[in-house]
Amino acid sequence: MKLKKIGTFESCFKELFGIPRQSSLAPSVQGKIILSPPFDRKEMISDLDKFSHIWVIFGFHAIKNNHFRTTVRPPRLGGNKKVGVFATRSPYRPNPIGISLLKIIKVQKKEKEISILVSGQDILDQTPVYDIKPYLPSVDCEPKANGGWTDEVPINNEPSIQFSTESIQNIQKFFPEKEKQLSFQKIIKETLALDPRPGHQRGQMEYKTYGFRLLDFDILWSTENNNFSVEKVFKIGSNNL
Amino acid sequence: MKLKKIGTFESCFKELFGIPRQSSLAPSVQGKIILSPPFDRKEMISDLDKFSHIWVIFGFHAIKNNHFRTTVRPPRLGGNKKVGVFATRSPYRPNPIGISLLKIIKVQKKEKEISILVSGQDILDQTPVYDIKPYLPSVDCEPKANGGWTDEVPINNEPSIQFSTESIQNIQKFFPEKEKQLSFQKIIKETLALDPRPGHQRGQMEYKTYGFRLLDFDILWSTENNNFSVEKVFKIGSNNL
Repeated sequence: MKLKKIGTFESCFKELFGIPRQSSLAPSVQGKIILSPPFDRKEMISDLDKFSHIWVIFGFHAIKNNHFRTTVRPPRLGGNKKVGVFATRSPYRPNPIGISLLKIIKVQKKEKEISILVSGQDILDQTPVYDIKPYLPSVDCEPKANGGWTDEVPINNEPSIQFSTESIQNIQKFFPEKEKQLSFQKIIKETLALDPRPGHQRGQMEYKTYGFRLLDFDILWSTENNNFSVEKVFKIGSNNL
Repeated sequence: MKLKKIGTFESCFKELFGIPRQSSLAPSVQGKIILSPPFDRKEMISDLDKFSHIWVIFGFHAIKNNHFRTTVRPPRLGGNKKVGVFATRSPYRPNPIGISLLKIIKVQKKEKEISILVSGQDILDQTPVYDIKPYLPSVDCEPKANGGWTDEVPINNEPSIQFSTESIQNIQKFFPEKEKQLSFQKIIKETLALDPRPGHQRGQMEYKTYGFRLLDFDILWSTENNNFSVEKVFKIGSNNL
């Protein structure tokens, strides 16, 4: 079957590294689905604003279609244990399609743009969207379901996260308003709390630095023992890097 | 994006009419996903048996790809009210892909067939399957989500359902074992309890007969007031019809 793109996802995540591994894990992170022609018609999303959540079916467009794996080493299992690809949500699957449960913030029907503002997203910027379906709690929610190997590891073994004085000064420079400074810090915190390091590097105690891209910024952060520190925040393309 | 079929769904539902409109609404109904080559490898479903539920992403293969609608009249709203197609799970969508939450009964790894037995299914026989993903209750379950227009109508305004003496005799003839008779009756009951009539015919009080196909049988049933009656059960292709 051939899928037509019905929209494009605008996200603060500009690269794969750093993206929360499931939606709803970073509730502050917002994104926007912009419907593409010929599907940018307001009738098509009529009554969608009465739902609180949607399923978004999208393509893992940064993954090459023919690069699927039969087994995967989930980062949450430390990268040591193999499980079948169909027992994971890994993007390296026969058909690189993903589903994400997102919270609707606002359905926007402007003259030139039909879009849905969402939060809790885990989707890369410019991701093609293939379908939007309402979340039906009466049939989609199974609180007693068994989460298999994902039950073995708690999601929140949160590391301590500090911001260096320099990183705070960087953020203050880029965002003059106090409110925006705090929400930018919150997004960074939620993203780091999920420990975006590759599975095999988790639990390593020595000092190491990493970077990830968020909106138009590169975030330089370091780990030592189980303490994370945001070191510097650069504007992409500036000479500071 | 082009989707490759990874498996085929074997179901007791041989035609669209009569299929429960959401999975999990007819918990007795079983089905089987048989993996297709080159994806029929037991590594690919390793550890899947530790989960209790899966998402199945499938194609609405009985719906023509170019027959999407911008708005839909959901049967549950009596067929009078229009809502945007993206605010429904209707199969008449730009990309005819569906998602169903199914309960795993058994993951079977035989030499010549890798398959997953499931229950609670709402999928047509011979449906192409494009992906299988584990259900993660920690991120997929939002009990407080707002179900939009679907909250307006309760799912279970169950009609009374009787079996005629003739239909019971038919069933006894086809299924000598008492246990199978009862489970066949249960599937019929669960299917009818969801009122498979077209929306605009619901609530009609006069006597009317309908048929639907289940496994290799045609079920003839009638409605009058809010009472449903199973009249006859025919084997498909027999001279009784």
